[in-house]
Amino acid sequence: MRTTVGWQLDAPATTLRRTSLRRRELRPDDLAVRVDYCGVCHTDLHAVDAAARQGEAGRAPLVPGHEFTGVVTGVGPEVTRFAVGDPVAVGNIVDSCGECAMCRADQENFCHTFPTLTYDGIDRYDGSATLGGWSREYVVRDGFAYPLPAGLDPAAAAPLLCAGITVWEPLYALGVGPGTRVAVAGLGGLGHLAVKLAVALGAETSVISRSPGKADDARRLGAHGLLVSTDPEAMAAARDRFDVVIDTISAPHDVGPYLRLVAMDGTLSHLGHLGSLTVEAMDLLVGRKRLSSAGSGGRRATSAMLAFCAEHGIAADVELLPSARVNEALDRLRRNDVRYRFVLDMSDLG
Amino acid sequence: MRTTVGWQLDAPATTLRRTSLRRRELRPDDLAVRVDYCGVCHTDLHAVDAAARQGEAGRAPLVPGHEFTGVVTGVGPEVTRFAVGDPVAVGNIVDSCGECAMCRADQENFCHTFPTLTYDGIDRYDGSATLGGWSREYVVRDGFAYPLPAGLDPAAAAPLLCAGITVWEPLYALGVGPGTRVAVAGLGGLGHLAVKLAVALGAETSVISRSPGKADDARRLGAHGLLVSTDPEAMAAARDRFDVVIDTISAPHDVGPYLRLVAMDGTLSHLGHLGSLTVEAMDLLVGRKRLSSAGSGGRRATSAMLAFCAEHGIAADVELLPSARVNEALDRLRRNDVRYRFVLDMSDLG
Repeated sequence: MRTTVGWQLDAPATTLRRTSLRRRELRPDDLAVRVDYCGVCHTDLHAVDAAARQGEAGRAPLVPGHEFTGVVTGVGPEVTRFAVGDPVAVGNIVDSCGECAMCRADQENFCHTFPTLTYDGIDRYDGSATLGGWSREYVVRDGFAYPLPAGLDPAAAAPLLCAGITVWEPLYALGVGPGTRVAVAGLGGLGHLAVKLAVALGAETSVISRSPGKADDARRLGAHGLLVSTDPEAMAAARDRFDVVIDTISAPHDVGPYLRLVAMDGTLSHLGHLGSLTVEAMDLLVGRKRLSSAGSGGRRATSAMLAFCAEHGIAADVELLPSARVNEALDRLRRNDVRYRFVLDMSDLG
Repeated sequence: MRTTVGWQLDAPATTLRRTSLRRRELRPDDLAVRVDYCGVCHTDLHAVDAAARQGEAGRAPLVPGHEFTGVVTGVGPEVTRFAVGDPVAVGNIVDSCGECAMCRADQENFCHTFPTLTYDGIDRYDGSATLGGWSREYVVRDGFAYPLPAGLDPAAAAPLLCAGITVWEPLYALGVGPGTRVAVAGLGGLGHLAVKLAVALGAETSVISRSPGKADDARRLGAHGLLVSTDPEAMAAARDRFDVVIDTISAPHDVGPYLRLVAMDGTLSHLGHLGSLTVEAMDLLVGRKRLSSAGSGGRRATSAMLAFCAEHGIAADVELLPSARVNEALDRLRRNDVRYRFVLDMSDLG
């Protein structure tokens, strides 16, 4: 086994501690990656909170982190796409069955046997629990690593691998482009990237926010307008106005007011809060509206998203912290105190 | 005022009684229609039950009925599309604002000021409560009546005006045709017409039913297969199989098992039960599936549906009862004891 260093939760502790970790020896199609930058996603927060609640009943130590960039430091003998020294990026999926209809359709994120997650998953070959990117080294199959395009800042690019692909998928699948009217609800890690991508795709893009104070932020991100969700008159006037509403609000909420903003035959993509949601059939019926969701993406879409971001100079607005401040980052994310994504700098791990 | 005879609920009574009704004198763009056949829709049952529950607090006598065929018996001076003696059909909408974006898009059913319903609505000119088609005469604006195409049996065609258009809209809007895999859940008034229309549109069409005993019925309607929803193995094997699932089940139910049958980028159209529904975001996310609804249709779509039905010889499978047996029809509909739609024969009203 290889050893590295990372940030791990050992329940019942509720904060992560620095510890040594084991990684598998390289298999023929594996890369070893020196992790330089890894984002802090809401999913990480949920995983930490869930593991802390579970306490000692939790099945394995938790090492979060599933959107990272770094440099290839070793390759197995069958690897041809990467060489030592290559800049590389990894997202939240590190394997899939490769055989089901979804995998064959380049949608490994929907693999019928469930994709292997970057952490808190089970490796398909040795049955070990996967440990995530909040560590100095990660070992990954070459097919689930992406060349990091030149011109993208590696720290700001890290969140593209989860937040970015999650909003790219619906924008792309719904054919967003010039002439499309897009609104993005919620201006966090997902939302701010949705705005940048929709604008770059040529859509007329608005931000929906509870606060009129977000107007400057929205404009800075390239949005053409701000709709204040707490203003009933503005919301009524915006009825049926948007072809696509990307709902990135991370807390449970009523989707009714957002569905009413969707134009005839348009779509509300609900992707910030992935629990149960209740809708009134009439809110779908009137205007023949569609409710969908999204999360992560397949390998083909991820590559396309990275190429698009490189071409258009798009990356996340990040607050970069030494990885030793990971617990502070989680606390602040819990309070939504971040613009717009924390990224951990792993160089302090040696 | 004109007078006619119809079937009315006077709460707190829970059964309808025959009584004389008033109709407005013809306005310049009005038709008088002798109602010959009127269907019995689940909406009628809900309206009767709701009015009975409300008791005397109900605002007006209730005369249900919103899918009928008959013959024009009088026309206002501005009517040019119809003449006395013309066979005619009327659905569940008898007016709309004509000015909003939805009306301009030929979707009067989504009128922003809410369309005037055939019964239990408020007339836009004189403020009177609309009384429905379970009566011998109806007075309607010419723009909301449809010529009944030759070759369609007037009794069997009556349910096309509500059940038919309700299932036609999603089939048409979703582009169902040759190569599309459609499943219809629930084989009642809506469901059996959805099967006939999907088959005629060229789709590979299956019925989803709780009972394997529906296989003969499904085949008789033209379906190519039956999926038994109580068979877990069959349901698992049918995962991601259908591009479009038309869910016409009229009772509240979990849509999760039906969403899992939807193929990647496909749609579940939920139109049998129009209350709240709860979905797991993950059931939408995995496979990028869409949830939509439908109900009624605009005038252009209604005309297109009638023409299609005439061309393909499609009408409802009905059980025709003298209108005097309306209370029996409601009781049996409450128990789902009908194949597949009751139609009341109004000739017993004189």
